Amino acid sequence: MPVFESREEVTHAIIAARVARGIRWADVATAVGRSKEWTTAACFGQMTFSAGEAEALVALLELDPSALPWLQTVPYKGTLGGGAPDDPLLYRWYEMISVYGPAIKELIHEEFGDGIMSAIDFKMHIEREPDPAGDRVHVNISGKFLPYKKY
Amino acid sequence: MPVFESREEVTHAIIAARVARGIRWADVATAVGRSKEWTTAACFGQMTFSAGEAEALVALLELDPSALPWLQTVPYKGTLGGGAPDDPLLYRWYEMISVYGPAIKELIHEEFGDGIMSAIDFKMHIEREPDPAGDRVHVNISGKFLPYKKY
Amino acid sequence: MPVFESREEVTHAIIAARVARGIRWADVATAVGRSKEWTTAACFGQMTFSAGEAEALVALLELDPSALPWLQTVPYKGTLGGGAPDDPLLYRWYEMISVYGPAIKELIHEEFGDGIMSAIDFKMHIEREPDPAGDRVHVNISGKFLPYKKY
Amino acid sequence: MPVFESREEVTHAIIAARVARGIRWADVATAVGRSKEWTTAACFGQMTFSAGEAEALVALLELDPSALPWLQTVPYKGTLGGGAPDDPLLYRWYEMISVYGPAIKELIHEEFGDGIMSAIDFKMHIEREPDPAGDRVHVNISGKFLPYKKY
Amino acid sequence: MPVFESREEVTHAIIAARVARGIRWADVATAVGRSKEWTTAACFGQMTFSAGEAEALVALLELDPSALPWLQTVPYKGTLGGGAPDDPLLYRWYEMISVYGPAIKELIHEEFGDGIMSAIDFKMHIEREPDPAGDRVHVNISGKFLPYKKY
Amino acid sequence: MPVFESREEVTHAIIAARVARGIRWADVATAVGRSKEWTTAACFGQMTFSAGEAEALVALLELDPSALPWLQTVPYKGTLGGGAPDDPLLYRWYEMISVYGPAIKELIHEEFGDGIMSAIDFKMHIEREPDPAGDRVHVNISGKFLPYKKY
Amino acid sequence: MPVFESREEVTHAIIAARVARGIRWADVATAVGRSKEWTTAACFGQMTFSAGEAEALVALLELDPSALPWLQTVPYKGTLGGGAPDDPLLYRWYEMISVYGPAIKELIHEEFGDGIMSAIDFKMHIEREPDPAGDRVHVNISGKFLPYKKY
Amino acid sequence: MPVFESREEVTHAIIAARVARGIRWADVATAVGRSKEWTTAACFGQMTFSAGEAEALVALLELDPSALPWLQTVPYKGTLGGGAPDDPLLYRWYEMISVYGPAIKELIHEEFGDGIMSAIDFKMHIEREPDPAGDRVHVNISGKFLPYKKY
Amino acid sequence: MPVFESREEVTHAIIAARVARGIRWADVATAVGRSKEWTTAACFGQMTFSAGEAEALVALLELDPSALPWLQTVPYKGTLGGGAPDDPLLYRWYEMISVYGPAIKELIHEEFGDGIMSAIDFKMHIEREPDPAGDRVHVNISGKFLPYKKY
Amino acid sequence: MPVFESREEVTHAIIAARVARGIRWADVATAVGRSKEWTTAACFGQMTFSAGEAEALVALLELDPSALPWLQTVPYKGTLGGGAPDDPLLYRWYEMISVYGPAIKELIHEEFGDGIMSAIDFKMHIEREPDPAGDRVHVNISGKFLPYKKY
Repeated sequence: MPVFESREEVTHAIIAARVARGIRWADVATAVGRSKEWTTAACFGQMTFSAGEAEALVALLELDPSALPWLQTVPYKGTLGGGAPDDPLLYRWYEMISVYGPAIKELIHEEFGDGIMSAIDFKMHIEREPDPAGDRVHVNISGKFLPYKKY
Repeated sequence: MPVFESREEVTHAIIAARVARGIRWADVATAVGRSKEWTTAACFGQMTFSAGEAEALVALLELDPSALPWLQTVPYKGTLGGGAPDDPLLYRWYEMISVYGPAIKELIHEEFGDGIMSAIDFKMHIEREPDPAGDRVHVNISGKFLPYKKY
Repeated sequence: MPVFESREEVTHAIIAARVARGIRWADVATAVGRSKEWTTAACFGQMTFSAGEAEALVALLELDPSALPWLQTVPYKGTLGGGAPDDPLLYRWYEMISVYGPAIKELIHEEFGDGIMSAIDFKMHIEREPDPAGDRVHVNISGKFLPYKKY
Repeated sequence: MPVFESREEVTHAIIAARVARGIRWADVATAVGRSKEWTTAACFGQMTFSAGEAEALVALLELDPSALPWLQTVPYKGTLGGGAPDDPLLYRWYEMISVYGPAIKELIHEEFGDGIMSAIDFKMHIEREPDPAGDRVHVNISGKFLPYKKY
Repeated sequence: MPVFESREEVTHAIIAARVARGIRWADVATAVGRSKEWTTAACFGQMTFSAGEAEALVALLELDPSALPWLQTVPYKGTLGGGAPDDPLLYRWYEMISVYGPAIKELIHEEFGDGIMSAIDFKMHIEREPDPAGDRVHVNISGKFLPYKKY
Repeated sequence: MPVFESREEVTHAIIAARVARGIRWADVATAVGRSKEWTTAACFGQMTFSAGEAEALVALLELDPSALPWLQTVPYKGTLGGGAPDDPLLYRWYEMISVYGPAIKELIHEEFGDGIMSAIDFKMHIEREPDPAGDRVHVNISGKFLPYKKY
Repeated sequence: MPVFESREEVTHAIIAARVARGIRWADVATAVGRSKEWTTAACFGQMTFSAGEAEALVALLELDPSALPWLQTVPYKGTLGGGAPDDPLLYRWYEMISVYGPAIKELIHEEFGDGIMSAIDFKMHIEREPDPAGDRVHVNISGKFLPYKKY
Repeated sequence: MPVFESREEVTHAIIAARVARGIRWADVATAVGRSKEWTTAACFGQMTFSAGEAEALVALLELDPSALPWLQTVPYKGTLGGGAPDDPLLYRWYEMISVYGPAIKELIHEEFGDGIMSAIDFKMHIEREPDPAGDRVHVNISGKFLPYKKY
Repeated sequence: MPVFESREEVTHAIIAARVARGIRWADVATAVGRSKEWTTAACFGQMTFSAGEAEALVALLELDPSALPWLQTVPYKGTLGGGAPDDPLLYRWYEMISVYGPAIKELIHEEFGDGIMSAIDFKMHIEREPDPAGDRVHVNISGKFLPYKKY
Repeated sequence: MPVFESREEVTHAIIAARVARGIRWADVATAVGRSKEWTTAACFGQMTFSAGEAEALVALLELDPSALPWLQTVPYKGTLGGGAPDDPLLYRWYEMISVYGPAIKELIHEEFGDGIMSAIDFKMHIEREPDPAGDRVHVNISGKFLPYKKY
C-alpha cells in the first residue's frame, strides 16, 4: 500500500476498496456521519472531509493513513469537462436540463426575479418511490436563491 | 401577422407575445390546463400540444391560426447542443450534475440495480421554500426507473 | 495475474484473454448463457453480470477471481465521447443516423405520437443474410416505445 | 411562391406544406411510389428523386415547379455535424451505437471478417410491434457486407 | 423604428444608438442611476432593469417604447460560449468574464482608447473583507495599459 | 527520491510535499520572499524562479536538488486548454484565469475553506491608476464567499 | 445606401466598395496616411481610425457618413475563433507556429528571460524578395519584449 | 539509460539533458552546425537530422546511441492540435494571425496573385532589437511564394 | 438580379443558375477553357478566374456583370472548418486519409525524404474506370514534392 | 520481450523494430507479399493480416510470437479523431478535400449519379513522377462506385 501523492489516487483507492469489500454507500455514509448523497460525492473527490470524517473513512476502508491530509484538502471538482456525459444514466439528467432548461429558468425568475439557485448552498435527497406501474426515482433538491446584486 | 412556416417561428412569437402582453407563465399554464412546468417547456418548443391545448394558447396570445398544426407536431427537442449552458442560472444545474453525477449514479444503482431514471416518463415541480436565512428554490423530480433488459 | 482495481482493467483482460485463447464471442455467450449481442456488449464493460454469469466468464477465460465483484458492479457506459466514431464500420452506423435521422424521427412519431424508442428496454439481433449479389448483414432491433408524460 | 434557389429551400417548403395540409408521410410515400423510410429521408434532403418521383411530390404538395431540378440534383447529405444529436429520440439511437458499438463491430467481424456493413446499399424498415407490456418499435436493417480489398 | 421582438434586438439598438449619438457609457450610467460597470453590462443584455431604469435608458437613447418590457425581463446571459473550467470556484471567475466581458472592454476603451490591460506587467492581491452579511473575497488587480501601436 | 525530468514532475512533487507536510501557501511565500499570489502561481508551474528563490523552495519542501534548474527554466504556462475569447483585451482576462487559476483557488481555500466566491453577489469597479511608467488599469472586485453546505 | 448599424456592416461595405472600384490596398493606405499593413487590418475591422483617417477612407470609397463614428469606435477584434484557419494561405502561418512554436518560445526566453513579445506594441512589414529560384515573401516583425512582473 | 523506442522519448531526453547540463540552444546549434532556429525546432521533434547532425547532438548531450536512427527518421510534426496555444508567449503569435490574418492574405495576393507563402521552403531568424523604450524582439521570415496551378 | 456584394453571393448564384439551366459541369469547363476539376472548384469559390475566364462564365450562366471583379478576386478558401465532412461521399475521402494517413506519410518520406506533397502546385483528374464487377472511380493526383529547407 | 496484450502494443513494436533495424517499408511489403501501400497501412494497425502474412512479418522483425493472433484480429481503425491532422504532409491531403471537396462530389455525381466512391473496395498507388521543374508525387486511386439503393 503505497503513500498517496494526489487526491485522484485516494479516490481510486476508495472505489476499489469499496467494491472489493462489498460495502454499500449507505454504510459508508453511516460511518462518516453524513447523508449518503454528500458522502458518495465526497468519496468521488467532490467534497472536503473534516478530520473526523476522514479518519472514519480511512478506518472503514483500511486505507493508508497518508490519505488523511488529501481528504481534508479542497479538491478540484467537476467531472463533465464542459460536454454531455457518455453514461446513459447521467445523460438523462443532462437531457432534463436540455429539454426543461428554458422552463426552469423562466419559472425561477417568475417567482424570484433575477438571480440563480445556488449549487453550493444546496442539498439533494434521492429515494425510491413505490409505484404499481413500476417504481420511480424521487429526487428532492433544495438550493438557496441568490439575487443578482445591483450597485 | 404572417403565416407560420416552422415551429421555431411559433416559439419566437409565443415569447414575444407573452412579454408584450405581460402575461405570467402560471397564467398561460392555467389557460392550457397543464402544470406550469410542462406548459412552459411546451411553449419553448419542447413538448407537443393537443388540439384543445393549442387552441387555448393561440387564443390567449392572439397568435395566427396557422400556429395550430405546428403546435401539434412533435418538435425537435433539446437546447444545449452537447455542451454546457452559458447562462448562469442554467449553468448551476449543469454543475450539479458535474459535481454530483457519480453520486447520483451510484445511489440509484445501489437502490435499483442497472438501469436509468427516465427523462420521458418524468415530472418536475418547482416551488418557493421560505427560509429565514434566505428563501430557497425547492425542486421535486420523479422519473420512472427503467431496468436494462437482459436477453 | 494481479488483483483487478477497476472495471477497465477487467475489460482489458477479457479482450486479451479471448484473443490469446482464440475463443469466439458466440462461445463466450454460450458459456455465459445470454445472447451473443448482450454478452459481447457486457464483456466490453457496457452491461452488468449476475453472480453466475460472472463466474462462468471468469472460469472460461481463466481470469483472477478479483474480477468477480467488478463484473457485478454497474459500469460507466458509453464509448463515443459525444462525437462520431473513427472506425469505418462504426462510422457507417453513425452515418445511418446522420442520413436517416429525420426520417426515423418522423415515422416513429407518425405511428406512436410524441415519445422515444427505449435504448434500455431494448434488444438487438445481428445475423448473416445470404444474397447472391453479396451476403448482407441483417439487424433486428426492438425497443419499447415510451410516450412523453403530460402533467 | 418564389423560385427556389437551393435544395434547403425546397426541403423547408416540403416540411411546411406537409404540416399545413396535414398529409401523413405514409401518403407522401404512396404518391412518390417508394417506401415510407426512403421517401421521408428524401424529403428531408438526403436522397435524389427521379423525374417522375419529383413530379409526383411537387403535385401532391403544390410546390413551385422550380423545385423539380433541385429534387433531381444529388444533395449534400448528413444532419449530425460530427457530434451527438440533441433530440431525445435521435439521441437514443446514438446511445445504441455508443453502448453496443464494440459488440456490433466484433460480431460482424466474427461472422464476415474484416470489412463494413454498407450504409449505401442499405434498407431500413420501421414498424409497430404490439406487446401487452407496451408496444415496441421494431426496426429491420439490411446492409450489404463489403470486405476490405487486399492488393 | 420597428417594434422590438427580442432582447437581442434591444441590445443591438442600444449599441447603435449610443455610437450614433456619441454618448459615453459613464453618462448612460448617470441617467440610469447605477454604476458604470453594472449599467454597461446591463446594456449588453446581461442584467435586468427596473421599470424606472428602463424608462431612463429608453428616453436617453430615444428607443421605441416596446423596448421597456424586454429591458425588465431577465435575459439569457453569458457571451463566451463554453470552454470553461470544470471546478466551481474557477468557473465563477470565468463566468465573471462571460457576463461582464463587454462592459470591461467598453469601459477600459472609454477611459484609455484602443489597447489592452497587460496580463504580464500585472499584479493581483486577494484578501478577506469582513462583512456582517457574510465575509467577502476582495481582489485587487493592477495591469499596465498598453495602447495599440499605429504605423 | 528520483531525479526530476520535467517541470511537471517538479510541480507534482511540490503539491504533494506541501499537503504531506501541512505547510500553508503563505508560509511558502515567506520562505521564497515573494507575495503569496506570485509564489503560489509559480509553484503551480506558471512563473520562473530565480536561483535564490528556487533554493529556498527546495530547502523548505526537502525536494531533490535536480529540481533547481527546472524551477529556473521558463515553463509552458496556462491551465485552461482553450475556449477563449477572440478579442485581445478580453483574452488577457481569460489568460489571467488560465495562469493564476490554481493560485486563486488555493489562496481562497486557504483563507476560507471549501466554497466559492460568488459571481452573483458581486461588485466590480474599474479605474485609471496613474503611473509614471505608463498608467495602469486598476480593478476592484468583491464577491461574497459561499461555503459548501454539508448535510 | 442605408445607415450603418454596426462595425461589421461598415467592414462589409469597405470590402465591397474596394472590389467594385478596383482600388488597391496600397492606395487605400496612401489615402489614409498609414502603412498598408495597418490600414488593411483596420479596414477589416481590427484597428481604430482617428477622425481624419476615417474621413479620408469614407471619401475615397464614397461610404455613407454614418460609417464615421463606427470607424472611430474600438472594434471587437480577432478572426480565428480559437481554431486553425481554413484558408490555405492563412493555414501556412498557423502551421509555422505549430512547427516552430517551441523553438520561438525557447529562443526568446534564452535571449530575454521570462516574458512575452507584444502583439500590441507591434509592427509588421510584408514585401517581395526577388529570388531566381522563385520570388519570396519577406516579412519583418517587431514586437516589444514585456518581462513578467515579480511582486 | 534505456534504449529509445520512439522519437517522443528522444525529444524528452534532449530537453531533460539540456536543462540538467545548463547548455544554451545557441551552443546546441553550433555543435550541430545549423541556425539556432532550425536546430531548436529539430530538437523539439519537428525536423529531420542528417547522420552527422544526429551524431553531434548525441555526443554533446551524451544520449544513448539508439537515438541516432530516430533523429534521422522524419517525425510527425505539429504541436497545436488544431486549436490556439495555451502558453502566453505562443498565444501572442496566434493572436497576430487572428488580428492581422485578413491583411496578410490581402497584401500577399495584391503583390503576387493567388497562391501561398510556403511554410516548407521557409526560413526564420529571431534577434534582439535594442530600443531605449524597451528592447524589442525582431523577427525575419522568408517563405517562397507558390502560385496556384491552373490546368 | 441585384448587384453582387461578396464572392459567396456569386457562388450561390452560379450553383442556382447551373441547376435551373441544367448545364453540366463539363460544359461549364469547356466554356471557361479549363479542366472540369479546376473549373468546378473555381465555381465553388476555391480558385481565382482570369478576366477572360470570368467573362465566359458570366456569359454562359447569364449572371449580373458585377460578378466579374469578384470572380477575379482571390477568395477565402476551404470548406471543412477543421473537422470531418458530414456528406457520405466526402466522408469516404476523409476516411481514406484517416486509415491510410500514416502509410502515405511513410511512403512519401521513404521515397523523397522530409518534405510535403504540394496542394498548390497540384493537379487532380477524375474519370470512370469500367469494371465488370461494377465501374470504379479512378483518380489521378499529381503534386510537386517540396523538401523542407535546412539553414 | 513481453507478451503483447493489445494491437496497439504490436503496432508500437513494429515501428520501433523497423527503425532500429533500418528496414525499408518496401522490403517489409516484399516479405509480406502485398503492395507497399497496403502493407504499411496494415503495419500501422489499419488492416488485418492473414496467418501467413503475420508469420512473415513477425519473422522479419523478430517480434514475440504473441503478436500473431493480434495481427489476425480486425483492428479498430482510423487515426484522425474527427479533426484535421497536425502533421504538415497529412494536412495537405486534408486541405485537398477542403478545397476540392465540392468539385469531387459534383463530378462523381455528374458521371455516376447518386452514390459514393468506396474507401473499402479501394486501392492506392504512390510513385515518384520525375519532372525537370522538381519531381512530383503521383498518386493513383481506384475505388468502386456504389450507388444509393432505392426501395
